[in-house]
Amino acid sequence: MSGNTFGHAFRVTTFGESHGVAIGCVVDGCPPAIPIDLAAIQTALSRRRPGQSKLVTPRQEADAVECLSGLDLESGRSLGTPIALVVRNADQRSTSYADWHHIYRPSHADWTYDAKYGLRAWQGGGRASARETTARVAAGALAEQVLQARFPGLQVVAWVERVHQLDASAAIEAATVSRDMVDAHPTRVPDAAMAQRIEEAILAAKAKGESLGGVVRLQIRGVPPGLGDPVFDKLDAQLAAAMMSLPAVKGVEIGSGFEAVEMTGSEHNDPFRWEDGNLVTTSNRSGGIQGGISNGMPIDLRVAFKPTATVLKPQSSANDEGENVPLQAKGRHDPCVLPRAVPIVEAMASLVLVDAFLRQRGQVGDPWPGLKANGD
Amino acid sequence: MSGNTFGHAFRVTTFGESHGVAIGCVVDGCPPAIPIDLAAIQTALSRRRPGQSKLVTPRQEADAVECLSGLDLESGRSLGTPIALVVRNADQRSTSYADWHHIYRPSHADWTYDAKYGLRAWQGGGRASARETTARVAAGALAEQVLQARFPGLQVVAWVERVHQLDASAAIEAATVSRDMVDAHPTRVPDAAMAQRIEEAILAAKAKGESLGGVVRLQIRGVPPGLGDPVFDKLDAQLAAAMMSLPAVKGVEIGSGFEAVEMTGSEHNDPFRWEDGNLVTTSNRSGGIQGGISNGMPIDLRVAFKPTATVLKPQSSANDEGENVPLQAKGRHDPCVLPRAVPIVEAMASLVLVDAFLRQRGQVGDPWPGLKANGD
Amino acid sequence: MSGNTFGHAFRVTTFGESHGVAIGCVVDGCPPAIPIDLAAIQTALSRRRPGQSKLVTPRQEADAVECLSGLDLESGRSLGTPIALVVRNADQRSTSYADWHHIYRPSHADWTYDAKYGLRAWQGGGRASARETTARVAAGALAEQVLQARFPGLQVVAWVERVHQLDASAAIEAATVSRDMVDAHPTRVPDAAMAQRIEEAILAAKAKGESLGGVVRLQIRGVPPGLGDPVFDKLDAQLAAAMMSLPAVKGVEIGSGFEAVEMTGSEHNDPFRWEDGNLVTTSNRSGGIQGGISNGMPIDLRVAFKPTATVLKPQSSANDEGENVPLQAKGRHDPCVLPRAVPIVEAMASLVLVDAFLRQRGQVGDPWPGLKANGD
Amino acid sequence: MSGNTFGHAFRVTTFGESHGVAIGCVVDGCPPAIPIDLAAIQTALSRRRPGQSKLVTPRQEADAVECLSGLDLESGRSLGTPIALVVRNADQRSTSYADWHHIYRPSHADWTYDAKYGLRAWQGGGRASARETTARVAAGALAEQVLQARFPGLQVVAWVERVHQLDASAAIEAATVSRDMVDAHPTRVPDAAMAQRIEEAILAAKAKGESLGGVVRLQIRGVPPGLGDPVFDKLDAQLAAAMMSLPAVKGVEIGSGFEAVEMTGSEHNDPFRWEDGNLVTTSNRSGGIQGGISNGMPIDLRVAFKPTATVLKPQSSANDEGENVPLQAKGRHDPCVLPRAVPIVEAMASLVLVDAFLRQRGQVGDPWPGLKANGD
Repeated sequence: MSGNTFGHAFRVTTFGESHGVAIGCVVDGCPPAIPIDLAAIQTALSRRRPGQSKLVTPRQEADAVECLSGLDLESGRSLGTPIALVVRNADQRSTSYADWHHIYRPSHADWTYDAKYGLRAWQGGGRASARETTARVAAGALAEQVLQARFPGLQVVAWVERVHQLDASAAIEAATVSRDMVDAHPTRVPDAAMAQRIEEAILAAKAKGESLGGVVRLQIRGVPPGLGDPVFDKLDAQLAAAMMSLPAVKGVEIGSGFEAVEMTGSEHNDPFRWEDGNLVTTSNRSGGIQGGISNGMPIDLRVAFKPTATVLKPQSSANDEGENVPLQAKGRHDPCVLPRAVPIVEAMASLVLVDAFLRQRGQVGDPWPGLKANGD
Repeated sequence: MSGNTFGHAFRVTTFGESHGVAIGCVVDGCPPAIPIDLAAIQTALSRRRPGQSKLVTPRQEADAVECLSGLDLESGRSLGTPIALVVRNADQRSTSYADWHHIYRPSHADWTYDAKYGLRAWQGGGRASARETTARVAAGALAEQVLQARFPGLQVVAWVERVHQLDASAAIEAATVSRDMVDAHPTRVPDAAMAQRIEEAILAAKAKGESLGGVVRLQIRGVPPGLGDPVFDKLDAQLAAAMMSLPAVKGVEIGSGFEAVEMTGSEHNDPFRWEDGNLVTTSNRSGGIQGGISNGMPIDLRVAFKPTATVLKPQSSANDEGENVPLQAKGRHDPCVLPRAVPIVEAMASLVLVDAFLRQRGQVGDPWPGLKANGD
Repeated sequence: MSGNTFGHAFRVTTFGESHGVAIGCVVDGCPPAIPIDLAAIQTALSRRRPGQSKLVTPRQEADAVECLSGLDLESGRSLGTPIALVVRNADQRSTSYADWHHIYRPSHADWTYDAKYGLRAWQGGGRASARETTARVAAGALAEQVLQARFPGLQVVAWVERVHQLDASAAIEAATVSRDMVDAHPTRVPDAAMAQRIEEAILAAKAKGESLGGVVRLQIRGVPPGLGDPVFDKLDAQLAAAMMSLPAVKGVEIGSGFEAVEMTGSEHNDPFRWEDGNLVTTSNRSGGIQGGISNGMPIDLRVAFKPTATVLKPQSSANDEGENVPLQAKGRHDPCVLPRAVPIVEAMASLVLVDAFLRQRGQVGDPWPGLKANGD
Repeated sequence: MSGNTFGHAFRVTTFGESHGVAIGCVVDGCPPAIPIDLAAIQTALSRRRPGQSKLVTPRQEADAVECLSGLDLESGRSLGTPIALVVRNADQRSTSYADWHHIYRPSHADWTYDAKYGLRAWQGGGRASARETTARVAAGALAEQVLQARFPGLQVVAWVERVHQLDASAAIEAATVSRDMVDAHPTRVPDAAMAQRIEEAILAAKAKGESLGGVVRLQIRGVPPGLGDPVFDKLDAQLAAAMMSLPAVKGVEIGSGFEAVEMTGSEHNDPFRWEDGNLVTTSNRSGGIQGGISNGMPIDLRVAFKPTATVLKPQSSANDEGENVPLQAKGRHDPCVLPRAVPIVEAMASLVLVDAFLRQRGQVGDPWPGLKANGD
């Protein structure tokens, strides 16, 4: 009800303010007896961690995860009980925010939190900080392990497709991108030439105290057909909510997205074709989802991130005493969140999928009809 | 869990197949003692009704709504108990679908329902049919009444901004569009010249057995600041899910949307300013939502609809016996769903808002801080 | 949130006032492809129906159920989509309640509904009427079919064990009671001699305008081990809530119940024993549930119903204008609800079990470890 | 879905195994700006703490609570965001359980966890241990603070009414019992003479390696009328579930409970009466709840606890290899959980009430009709 829980069958509840004691999550509904690799969760956190390159915020956080519950003490397997994961905050420096206690920073959530609750954790943005996504990444890494225990061929891969005016989409063959290719460059653009140009653009923006937005592309391969619940909990609706719930996201597209508008129906339809006993579509404008249910083709998504609101330039703003005041931000600054957004987008996708899988297994059983038809 | 319920505090559960006995919904959580205008619900249904113009499907449905429960028999006021609304199906003609019993129509949900459940209501698409949205419109009209009982200045207005290559956005001043302006033309494009051109394009597509997609724009004015729950249930995340849960939607943008990517942070930020005791932003790239919470500015949304999958042209497809077969659709055909999508988009928006309002009242009380600050 | 939905995976939402247009429910989450026997649902409703004997209220209702959705039109199998079931009200006679419009009847819900909502459906008690349980029985009969499709040996059997001072427990061997035995007498006491005495007691109370309470006993046999979620959703907690949510219930016991207090730990513990590859307990004071999870032994429950509040005797009461006034009830009167409570208790038990089954299948899969161990 | 969350508007998710790293909870939905007294939460934990007297288990746990999130760093007020509370386990001694790794202890949850999940945290019972209630007490103490911020006159008071054959109910005037009276004796029996006799009985059982059950009585005074949702979420249904979800509980009664069966309707009905502008009942067999909604009278509840399953006597049992084996428990032993159950029962009651309050405020607003009528 208060929005800090995600999922129905695999439920993740996150907690923690940016400058509080800790960030964490409780995962309820994890299937039992699954070997949990805490090191893999730590690796996922490191991909999201601040300070990992000169392209992102220098806040220093080891983001070491501690598991408080839910694992068998001997085997490390999941017990089926809640798994609590906690990351303590280290480099909080809340003094650097002291000047902003009473100012509403433009396009931040300062004013809206005050409007909603009457107070806010003004140090570092509280829950509105991207630091909250630490817990999502930890939970998502867990979700991915649960998914792969059942669907070893499933791949959740995101990358930076565009930053500001630099669009790398033409240079990247989406079907072949791997996480290794993505992580080969700190920009997480899986094309060396474009990665280089984008890095330069980010550093130039950083030097000017500016910030840049961009597009993250997500592909999920090896998705079994039949996931997603029709009507309100369509798989695409849940993915859209998952992505739009991330800080700085302003748009989401599935498959053809807004380009669908430029086609007629017969241009846009994806023809079906049986191939080796599997039903495939010979194009994928549907983005792997039809009627809200996965059809077995890759799920294909684009997420638009605005340039982050913190810029080190003078801005006009207002304070909580009814005055219009100038604002000059100081301190740490993340010129482009896109590289760090990649593991977060993947985490949210894994959370959506694992929930859809457990819901499907609950209502229909496992294997379900589409798995049989696919020879899975 | 199975996806047929929307909302947490104002919960709508819909039921009914396109060619079954009836379509309907149960609304649980409606506040008590609110005068319910069933005629206004009927009016909303008529705006969504098939057969209302030559631009849409000729299926003949009066869509007369019957209320089975939840209203005081004498005063017509809500009792606070579940309100069940039912619309019986009339013109089902399922024989016209008989040929398709075993064929998976391209870009429909035939295959995915079979993959998920092992059977499907193949007559008219069952729950995947846009007919399911009848229940959403009824519930949304109820939601709007609840909202306006508390916020008389709230306006939820959607319109067709674009169809296929014809983009009317430059011709329309979003801030001034009213429902009357929208309904002045059967295309629901609130600009006479563009409406005329778009009508011609739709009729041309109809003549060719083609279908066209487009963009619906939504503006919600008079929104109180403070609605929406941070983190997973951000107001924009819920709106995105609501819209992406509609048939044929492929993309959603809030505020600046994908155009945000083209700006730097200082270009994109919305400066705050106190005006007459209200905190406003002097631009609205945030689309009325910051940190997932309404900031009091108009909520601004764009929804991309693909061209509908039913086209009266030969297509290559597959059947449920592993054969690749040609398909030639016959029968009724909706060349462009955009005009009918307008009241559906409005309904979903109202459902999101009323739920956010009741959740806010539950956690924080009413009035909440932002309402006081706004002099409400 | 507003309490008209039961269950998480198999979700039942009921609607309808006693004297409104109809009573009904929507079941979301029903597994697909299950043959649904609407006649069996009608039979269950007839067991709950008023007017079925001289022992119960003479209100005349055929309680004919109509299914609006969720079934395959050809095969009658469940589609996996919401199943809406509706029973129209016929014999409403709301004029007979007109005198009570402004009086709060003792131990009814008149005052509390007014206190909560500010208005109420005063005709016949609205949602607080036992008529609401019609929808529960319909949904429960559906649930039972889903359960038996997977667990053919499962038996849900309830009976009247006691009415007022007449306790039939010593005369009844709980392990052998069948529905046929229960339905052999209109009292639903499965012992002929006690049934006769209890019938006389009820008729004597009826003649005096009095009402009598009693105890319903429930046994569920053939329950697979492993159902129920630990901590808050223990199977016994859910059964207790299900029963306590019925009108007139004041107490619930599982297994030994309040008698547990009279034993020491070593007297109360149920020894385990392997028998033919199944783990059993040689006594069943646990009532088939340990740590909130079914252990494979029969679930054993007792539910105490108070005497219903409607008595045809003068009472002192109060009205909604602050006056203390006498009340003399007239009209229909149910001297003892116990016989009709039997199918309602069974329905609630089936709803709890089917939900637990689907939740277990979702989180752990099917078969789960306890089913294997049991050779199921 | 997996049963570790309680409540809808004020949602508590607990985590932690008895012998794992920590026990804790996350509370989502707490209203903002409420001064939170962490010391009072610690005090509540100390009332539940093991080792507090010779009457209970000697496990040594300081149960020091740490708050990880959700409070304003300066004022200590709630932020409206999730509040995470953690208690680290200290005295785990899991070696003392090593013998039991493969044995199913009678009337414990060893077998059922294995049957459900295929593995279990066998050290100390994992989640089935009463240690899990630590988190409930912390959350309940928080809930109580939220309740009292709005309803300063609300009192939630539980006590031990009976242990084994010793029934103190006749010696205790329920309406006047306070927490101080309850805590005056380690048995938590608020009558000195009966407390003394009960202490002796517990010590005698302890000496014999036996355990004793009993009855906890709960009274909640100053409850506003109008709380509780009709139909499935009746206030009494939620209280019953809350209590039955506690380890060792076998029965729950509201108001007259099973004794209701011995009365006729006119004997059982509670007459209404206006007194000083408040509507009261001149008896309280309803236990403060009518039609599932609070009527403003004290809520009155009895909870039956079985004697705990751990006894230091030889028992016959079975292991996980299909063998019937003897069991001789050693180690720590809690001869009577009743004294420690008192704060747990209070905590669950507070959780039910605060959820009902926030749900009521959400749907109806605050004040609601019953509060006005009561002059609140």
